Amino acid sequence: MSKIAILGLGTVGTGVAKVVAENSRQIERRLGEPLSVKAILVRHFQEGPWRQLMTDDFDKIEQDQEIRVVVETIGGVGAAYEYTKRALSAGKHVVTANKQLVAEKGCELLELARRKNVNYLFEASVGGGIPVLHPMTQCLSANRIDEVYGILNGTTNYILTRMVRTGSFFSDALREAQAKGYAEADPSADVNGTDAGRKICILADLAFGRQVRPEDVPLEGISRLSLRDVKVAGRAGYRIKLLGRAIRLSGGGRTAYVAPHLVPEDHPLANVEDVYNAVMVRGNATGEVMFYGKGAGELPTASACVSDVIEALEHNGRREDIGWTEDPEGFVDPLEVQTRFYFRIEGSLTDAALAFGQVEVLSEDGETGFLTERISGHEARELSRNLNVLACLRVLG
Amino acid sequence: MSKIAILGLGTVGTGVAKVVAENSRQIERRLGEPLSVKAILVRHFQEGPWRQLMTDDFDKIEQDQEIRVVVETIGGVGAAYEYTKRALSAGKHVVTANKQLVAEKGCELLELARRKNVNYLFEASVGGGIPVLHPMTQCLSANRIDEVYGILNGTTNYILTRMVRTGSFFSDALREAQAKGYAEADPSADVNGTDAGRKICILADLAFGRQVRPEDVPLEGISRLSLRDVKVAGRAGYRIKLLGRAIRLSGGGRTAYVAPHLVPEDHPLANVEDVYNAVMVRGNATGEVMFYGKGAGELPTASACVSDVIEALEHNGRREDIGWTEDPEGFVDPLEVQTRFYFRIEGSLTDAALAFGQVEVLSEDGETGFLTERISGHEARELSRNLNVLACLRVLG
Repeated sequence: MSKIAILGLGTVGTGVAKVVAENSRQIERRLGEPLSVKAILVRHFQEGPWRQLMTDDFDKIEQDQEIRVVVETIGGVGAAYEYTKRALSAGKHVVTANKQLVAEKGCELLELARRKNVNYLFEASVGGGIPVLHPMTQCLSANRIDEVYGILNGTTNYILTRMVRTGSFFSDALREAQAKGYAEADPSADVNGTDAGRKICILADLAFGRQVRPEDVPLEGISRLSLRDVKVAGRAGYRIKLLGRAIRLSGGGRTAYVAPHLVPEDHPLANVEDVYNAVMVRGNATGEVMFYGKGAGELPTASACVSDVIEALEHNGRREDIGWTEDPEGFVDPLEVQTRFYFRIEGSLTDAALAFGQVEVLSEDGETGFLTERISGHEARELSRNLNVLACLRVLG
Repeated sequence: MSKIAILGLGTVGTGVAKVVAENSRQIERRLGEPLSVKAILVRHFQEGPWRQLMTDDFDKIEQDQEIRVVVETIGGVGAAYEYTKRALSAGKHVVTANKQLVAEKGCELLELARRKNVNYLFEASVGGGIPVLHPMTQCLSANRIDEVYGILNGTTNYILTRMVRTGSFFSDALREAQAKGYAEADPSADVNGTDAGRKICILADLAFGRQVRPEDVPLEGISRLSLRDVKVAGRAGYRIKLLGRAIRLSGGGRTAYVAPHLVPEDHPLANVEDVYNAVMVRGNATGEVMFYGKGAGELPTASACVSDVIEALEHNGRREDIGWTEDPEGFVDPLEVQTRFYFRIEGSLTDAALAFGQVEVLSEDGETGFLTERISGHEARELSRNLNVLACLRVLG
């Protein structure tokens, strides 16, 4: 019998308890012994099926030699950070879906796990139930990873899908997402790109082996996105998607950012709709591979945590040398990267051509929508400084 | 320095030598030591960059204690089977992309590897460079896997894509695929479903833990597919795709088969085009996740083999308990499974309705194209026996 503790009993924590109970047969077949939850750390006791497992005293979990894995589902960097350090120091494996903690403190926590010869695993922190981190670090380990990008936030993808399909305004689509439980009452971390930013940091850390600090990653959300741009792009064969991107640059640099992009409609990401997520990984030998599925939700995220628990127990004694150096050197401002830009201006095609030279017109009706050649973000700013810019978005590809 | 041997120097074997050389830095960073190819088994010596590594004597590889991993790229079940057994018996890890050998003898070879405490790894056998088998067995290990299905053969998907996009006949699309190097001079193993059949066996073995024998899996290819059906389906919002499917049935049974299907155009598989492959895995907690990418090619397939080499060396001492029991019991004829069917008949809607009751008409112009309600394959045969059936295909979903 292997025993674990769960810290926190919110959506993910409850899901972990459910998956351990409901899929006990699969888990036992895999582990060769049953798995059970011995303790659940809560702040306030509540009635329910796990009442007798609850404790409000982390010391008990920390000192319990029987508990070999701690699943941290508290979130944030306060208590979660503290308890993770204590659990690892006590020689316990720690599994989490806490993207903020991994993005901010992952390097340090992996180093502590290494010293204690235990695992710190966080597959569920990116893509919820979609396997992404293990496949990237393990199955693509013979590749140099040149780029990782994708739709990393289901809430914003749902909102964008509604704007494209039914022509809803952002504000209406957001209310609909809230009504369906896809968006929080305070949706700002989703809508302004913070959530996607934490995930692209983790992907970049693992792909390039060097820390990308969340504070260095420029975030552009979707709250200022106009329905007008969705329509102009749509008629020209593009869908607007919020992408996180991490790119290896020539000369050893790397960059990462979150921003809405025009995605060509025959690109696999263009058809990723509703709350689905998809992560594209480009390796120098494998080419592009994509991982797709529901990026959030109680059971998908919880099952990714439980799979990590199984992995930690199977490889008792540390599993694999994932990790990255803390040195953030070589991070380049994404404004230096060249790409095509979409502009919508209050002005004529002549205005656009005078500013940018060769452009591809998408719409001309009072305003002008057009695509530039490949230019850097700095150039895009500089060349458009005398235009009345209504919208400016990057184009994928 | 870790040393490996490659058996065979065809497309995959050459690719493995290239990836080891070209990505040596990534590989060394991961392994903590350099990786090198010490010997390549060939039947005939040939000039080229690997001339001095070639040998035609397997005994030398078998007896070389320095060689810790053997990458078998011979293909088939003759020499490949023999050498794999000998290499495993000699305490070497074996890595392969040989789907025929894994589908037919995988159970026995995994058991031998287990006894010898070495790994037999074959990620590249399904989906080429796309990570599928590891994510399914490892990252979804907390799930009961209920279904695995997908586009498992790039050649046939390329042909179908040409038929849909340009209205090419099957024969013309096949010649085009051959001209581009996507189809062999003898394309029968791709076109008749044999290749997809071996892959769905491997997926079913791993997903359900019990042997699915290739000879039990009914195969239906695409050579008899009519352009007419592509068009009728297309107008009704479906794409025709060749799918391998493995389904867990209630009551402990399971089935597997390969056949062309009508796929609704908003299904993620509908937009998998050209030589791309995609595998959908449905877990009872995670829901559906999809793995997508180029399913074949020298470097993608080779890089999957080299990643398995890294994995074998990192987990020296056996890695994970993948495997399945040899007992094929519980395999159910897929004709017993209920699904919607597409029929095209020489006859009227009245003929269709008399035979099947409620149907959904797709086309009526001399012939009648229609979809049935959900019925078993046996019922589809029985109810259509008095009709002049021009085409009969399953509908996905």
